[in-house]
Amino acid sequence: MTEPFDAVDVIRAQRDGTGVPEDALRWMVDAYTREYVTDAQMAAFAMAVLLNGMGREDIRVLTDAMIASGQRMSFAGLGKRTVDKHSTGGVGDKITLPLAPLVASFGVAVPQLSGRGLGHTGGTLDKLESIPGWRAALTGDELMAQLAGVGAAICAAGPGLAPADKRLYALRDVTGTVEAIPLIASSIMSKKIAEGTSALVLDVKVGTGAFMRDLDRARELARTMVALGSDSGVATVAVITDMNTPLGRAVGNANEVRESVEVLAGGGPADVVELTVTLAREMLALAGQPDADVAAALHDGRAMDVWRAMIRAQDGDPDAALPTPRESHTVTADAAGVVARMDAWDFGVAAWRLGAGRARPQDAVVHAAGIELHVKPGDTVTGGQPLYTLAADDASRFARALDALEGAVEIGANAPALPPLVHERITA
Amino acid sequence: MTEPFDAVDVIRAQRDGTGVPEDALRWMVDAYTREYVTDAQMAAFAMAVLLNGMGREDIRVLTDAMIASGQRMSFAGLGKRTVDKHSTGGVGDKITLPLAPLVASFGVAVPQLSGRGLGHTGGTLDKLESIPGWRAALTGDELMAQLAGVGAAICAAGPGLAPADKRLYALRDVTGTVEAIPLIASSIMSKKIAEGTSALVLDVKVGTGAFMRDLDRARELARTMVALGSDSGVATVAVITDMNTPLGRAVGNANEVRESVEVLAGGGPADVVELTVTLAREMLALAGQPDADVAAALHDGRAMDVWRAMIRAQDGDPDAALPTPRESHTVTADAAGVVARMDAWDFGVAAWRLGAGRARPQDAVVHAAGIELHVKPGDTVTGGQPLYTLAADDASRFARALDALEGAVEIGANAPALPPLVHERITA
Repeated sequence: MTEPFDAVDVIRAQRDGTGVPEDALRWMVDAYTREYVTDAQMAAFAMAVLLNGMGREDIRVLTDAMIASGQRMSFAGLGKRTVDKHSTGGVGDKITLPLAPLVASFGVAVPQLSGRGLGHTGGTLDKLESIPGWRAALTGDELMAQLAGVGAAICAAGPGLAPADKRLYALRDVTGTVEAIPLIASSIMSKKIAEGTSALVLDVKVGTGAFMRDLDRARELARTMVALGSDSGVATVAVITDMNTPLGRAVGNANEVRESVEVLAGGGPADVVELTVTLAREMLALAGQPDADVAAALHDGRAMDVWRAMIRAQDGDPDAALPTPRESHTVTADAAGVVARMDAWDFGVAAWRLGAGRARPQDAVVHAAGIELHVKPGDTVTGGQPLYTLAADDASRFARALDALEGAVEIGANAPALPPLVHERITA
Repeated sequence: MTEPFDAVDVIRAQRDGTGVPEDALRWMVDAYTREYVTDAQMAAFAMAVLLNGMGREDIRVLTDAMIASGQRMSFAGLGKRTVDKHSTGGVGDKITLPLAPLVASFGVAVPQLSGRGLGHTGGTLDKLESIPGWRAALTGDELMAQLAGVGAAICAAGPGLAPADKRLYALRDVTGTVEAIPLIASSIMSKKIAEGTSALVLDVKVGTGAFMRDLDRARELARTMVALGSDSGVATVAVITDMNTPLGRAVGNANEVRESVEVLAGGGPADVVELTVTLAREMLALAGQPDADVAAALHDGRAMDVWRAMIRAQDGDPDAALPTPRESHTVTADAAGVVARMDAWDFGVAAWRLGAGRARPQDAVVHAAGIELHVKPGDTVTGGQPLYTLAADDASRFARALDALEGAVEIGANAPALPPLVHERITA
């Protein structure tokens, strides 16, 4: 077969900003999926995208080409509205766990096709795998049946959705091209659009623990994704939320499940509850229920009932004891004062070093490893008061985790000015 | 072995312009040579170099690391001054052929380690291989003996010089990163410095038939290379010369050897003679003979004697008939006028399509294929007068060569303003 384009011409056009013709861009993605275009060529192209940017129309074509590289799912046969949520990733971000059953308790289908963690942010599937018996893999038929019955499913995305994105994401990870907004946006949105959801709420994180460290870039990413969703007929709203501090008090896997269950029982940390309720309202509004009393469903057991059914449907035991760590180590305050800062990035790296995350895709995570925060920014502490507790299966892991936490907690004399949890809301 | 650096950190530093530490940059080149750093990672790095540029000190470190990736030669034992010339490549550029013996006829050693052509510019070794019996490969001992005796040698660079550059050059060719000035400069200079010459004259081409199409970029490349030479103790001068028109009247292989012999016999086209004499004067000045009567050595047979000895030393027969083409096709002027332009790029592509060049490294060239120019810019022509003749082994090649030459020759009413052959001279 003679190829209609030359990869070097496509790279040069992106490099020089002279404009990549639509059919050439589609060919590039297709030929990369077929392994005709090499990793080296795609890496050079990705770096040119990162440094030169890409217009809205080119991002749409790129996303569309990634969708076309694989299969498309459809929830049309369900007879229910479907709405999905995606977070760009943060530390202690377990929101999907209480959120999916909460939204489903209003009769909406919530298909959460999720991933495992790599690097300092945890993976939703890793957290749920703390639950004895729970399995991440569902067939297409199992997923449809669970959405029809229980209403919510959190499961692994199959290999058939946007395979071009799978290959490109792994490449970006090792070539310093993760941070390109057009590539982040097309990666996320190609999977969500291929999945076939009719509405989508994006939680775009900003702060030290997020991929986007400043509000301008987070806003640019949010706007790009909302435009991509709208252009593809998926009703999309983005909320930009703060990720300078870990969410809640638990960072890890099993401890994050425990905290999620507290929220579903009507308790839990204020920030986790606030974000869960905010995102649930957005999702339900897109599903045609703008006035749903979300908070009530957390207090009257409706959300918990869906949670238990959802875990059982995937062979998990919602009443089983979760793994507990063998070793722990508590860090206390040197002096009295007010907690001014607890750095999300540092806590993320520390939890990762404790074993809660993985360095390579084939590594296993330690479900009981992680960190428990005893205080949060704004809290007053006395000298010697516990600040946080590290947990691991092996005490030798504490030293490197503590290195990461050097300077992570700042205690000042006065109450700090804390950022809002929700910065902005972006609509089409 | 634990690696001291992470390729992604190095790529990010180059990408963000935060500065790559010297030891990290050296590691990157070394790890790439060892194939620990992948082609994809180096391609992303190269694109970041192309788009962000690189400071003088970083280019020096990069060049030094490429030299360190292989062996270094030394001509210290020769007891003669050594001086080398490098051209960035052009169409009809056979200057090395008359130049090396001419300079050597003044008692200076001229080691010309050369390459084969790829793309529209020919390769010096390809041209010389038109001569029956001539062999490009010399051992280190053979090279030293030939420089001690004959004084000049044009031969293949061994695989041991700057192997990192060899790998990087092949990668740049397929990833749209050929045009990065820091990479061009370090590629050329790493080989020349590793080769061990004590002085170097650079012929930096500018024009449609050159890698550098405008004078600003040619000047930047020339300055970068002169600085690299000086920083490494190699006395270096650059001359920026015009490459909008093919050099001389012959473009190909065997026909370029014939034209070179005419120059060595005191004749030949004015532009080839002018450039040969200019570069010889620069080389001899660097070798301590600023007042050498270069033109005389072309007329009194001294340069020709060295040529014949140089060809014989490499088993070539300087008196043997050169290959002649089976087929030819002459193009004539449509109307009378003055030749305003003969586009070097178009003639280069046409000669390549006739078989004088190769598309893949493993392809063979057709030594008799090429183009003979009957006129040059500034010449007055009458309607029907022959402009150029294509030569090939197979007449089916003429159509695509003629496609490339569409619009390559411009004939106007008035004498054109022609650029000078030598634009500028750059010294440290």
